[in-house]
Amino acid sequence: MMRFSTLLKHPAEWMRNSGPQNEIVMTSRIRLARNLANLPFPGWAEQDDRVDVMEKIRPAVEDLSEMRDAFSEEMTSLTAIEKQVLVERHLVSREHAAKGPGCATVMNRKQTVSIMINEEDHLRMQSIRPGLQLSAAYQSLDKIDSDLENNLPYAFDGKYGYLTACPTNLGTGMRASAMLHLPGLVLSDQINQTIQAANKIGLAVRGLYGEGTEALANLFQVSNQTTLGSSEEKVIEHLDKVITRMIDNEQNARQKLIEDKATMLQDQIGRAYALLRWAHIIPSKEALNLLSMVRLGCDLGIFTGEERESINVLLTEIQPAHLQISAKRKLSAEERDVLRAEIIRTNLKGLTEPDFSDILTPPERDSTEDE
Amino acid sequence: MMRFSTLLKHPAEWMRNSGPQNEIVMTSRIRLARNLANLPFPGWAEQDDRVDVMEKIRPAVEDLSEMRDAFSEEMTSLTAIEKQVLVERHLVSREHAAKGPGCATVMNRKQTVSIMINEEDHLRMQSIRPGLQLSAAYQSLDKIDSDLENNLPYAFDGKYGYLTACPTNLGTGMRASAMLHLPGLVLSDQINQTIQAANKIGLAVRGLYGEGTEALANLFQVSNQTTLGSSEEKVIEHLDKVITRMIDNEQNARQKLIEDKATMLQDQIGRAYALLRWAHIIPSKEALNLLSMVRLGCDLGIFTGEERESINVLLTEIQPAHLQISAKRKLSAEERDVLRAEIIRTNLKGLTEPDFSDILTPPERDSTEDE
Repeated sequence: MMRFSTLLKHPAEWMRNSGPQNEIVMTSRIRLARNLANLPFPGWAEQDDRVDVMEKIRPAVEDLSEMRDAFSEEMTSLTAIEKQVLVERHLVSREHAAKGPGCATVMNRKQTVSIMINEEDHLRMQSIRPGLQLSAAYQSLDKIDSDLENNLPYAFDGKYGYLTACPTNLGTGMRASAMLHLPGLVLSDQINQTIQAANKIGLAVRGLYGEGTEALANLFQVSNQTTLGSSEEKVIEHLDKVITRMIDNEQNARQKLIEDKATMLQDQIGRAYALLRWAHIIPSKEALNLLSMVRLGCDLGIFTGEERESINVLLTEIQPAHLQISAKRKLSAEERDVLRAEIIRTNLKGLTEPDFSDILTPPERDSTEDE
Repeated sequence: MMRFSTLLKHPAEWMRNSGPQNEIVMTSRIRLARNLANLPFPGWAEQDDRVDVMEKIRPAVEDLSEMRDAFSEEMTSLTAIEKQVLVERHLVSREHAAKGPGCATVMNRKQTVSIMINEEDHLRMQSIRPGLQLSAAYQSLDKIDSDLENNLPYAFDGKYGYLTACPTNLGTGMRASAMLHLPGLVLSDQINQTIQAANKIGLAVRGLYGEGTEALANLFQVSNQTTLGSSEEKVIEHLDKVITRMIDNEQNARQKLIEDKATMLQDQIGRAYALLRWAHIIPSKEALNLLSMVRLGCDLGIFTGEERESINVLLTEIQPAHLQISAKRKLSAEERDVLRAEIIRTNLKGLTEPDFSDILTPPERDSTEDE
């Protein structure tokens, strides 16, 4: 079995590696909800029933070939900080982290497949991949799902499909999502329009961090809302198409910003670079937004070298639980802001000074020098 | 006579040079208000009377030995931008710049003595010196005042002293002031207490830029309020004593910040350095506050080399009229923010990367590394 400390030492594979369209698509994720037949859903179950369900499911999950030397723990045996680390890595939901006896989590060594037992449903399994790889993520999870189905009696209805605790998951039980970095659409004030257009065709778009409509780091999660009346393949194909269009829109928005607002880009990216290198106290929100601007700078060729990976890893590792694990003690908010700044400075040492010559096209330059 | 373009090319001598206590005291200034006997004050005078007064006073002022090759103009012959440049250099009051026929300004080549004709009083003369030099500034202005008094019939009352348009100037007609840079007292939240203490002993303290209680760039003007019942020498001696105490308080506040809040100082000064070097759009308020932090950094030995002079000059030259003169055309607010950033980047090229080792005393370092 894998120890928590080993898990900690290694960023998840989807954070480090890059996949197709990785300039704009950070990750693709598939989640399946499953339940055992004739047993109450976790929310209605007594504690004994939940423990019972866990004891049925957990051995089957640990037996999966994907789960060789996996990390497998009951939630009650993890500390508050350890659970929060898993939440910050998107390996466990915030709700699951708060649960008691009978709830467990199993994940593979690469942290690309994570299975929650007794979350909202008896089984919540997810597969995460870097870049735009919804189909690949689905196929790997579908195989795991089939293996489990051979050993566990799933609650399945011939007419509706998989039965789930919440009716919004009934049918496929699948939520497919991608995390997109959309600074171009945000900076050009097109993001709300983009979100509304996606909503109209049955997709949900929400900020990854932050509350309400706030989207820190310009990161957005796009996901399907339909689980009934459409096959998994159709849903993924649809989402894939929309995301491809959003990528085009984002690229166009960036091109337009270069043409019309190069000075604003220089200012935003220059400031972000400067502050990440020289600030000594950085609150979380500010850090996320500055990292987003530097990531955009990498995409636009303003920084040489491959720093996108460092930025992807930092987006997770500057969060509170990761900082406290790194400090090996509990930290106050003020102490976290100081350590966050230090970790950022250290991790971005390889960042070259910004070179804006690529985005300063001759017409823009002329108009600036115009008298 | 000196042309406006010549005046423009050279920053005032008090901006470039440094005087005693120049870490904290930017400038010392003496202003004297005088009126001609038996003629209405400018505010009550008809235009013809004002022109009459100007024609009496101006030749006498231009004849002063201090005013050889001086700049001498009627306000109506200057453009709006030119007048604003004089305001931004503190050579002319905002009120005077807005005046019509019969109002003029004469100043020496070094821009250390400036005489307004028909401002609130017939004569408003000021002498500015770098650093804490109130007595020296007074002596040079006193000589000019005596020379003028030999040729012009001043309105003087044996009991009250010099008669002035506003009773708050009656007596000596003198306002003595110093411009202090007090980031230490501001950062340690002691500034309001300092201002209140100064008020109690008859001194006025106000922010140099900004409105109301806002003090941009942490610059404060301290001045006497008394003009009646005390000699010029006594007033200056009193002000000098209080300012010396304020300098001590500011130095103590800085020392305390180094001891207790070194990380905050690192952050503020590091951020200011970073943004001044890398931002491409800087609004005026932000620029003033960032320059203040870098100036503090110079005082604390965080930047090597002598950049205080560049910063003093920049504090004036990033203001709207100076920017537009530099661009040789009218600029929108957005264009000014871009040019301001460019001028700052160019002028601070000599600034070394911040080196905080001097302010990180061993105890502070230990507590940061504590686990």
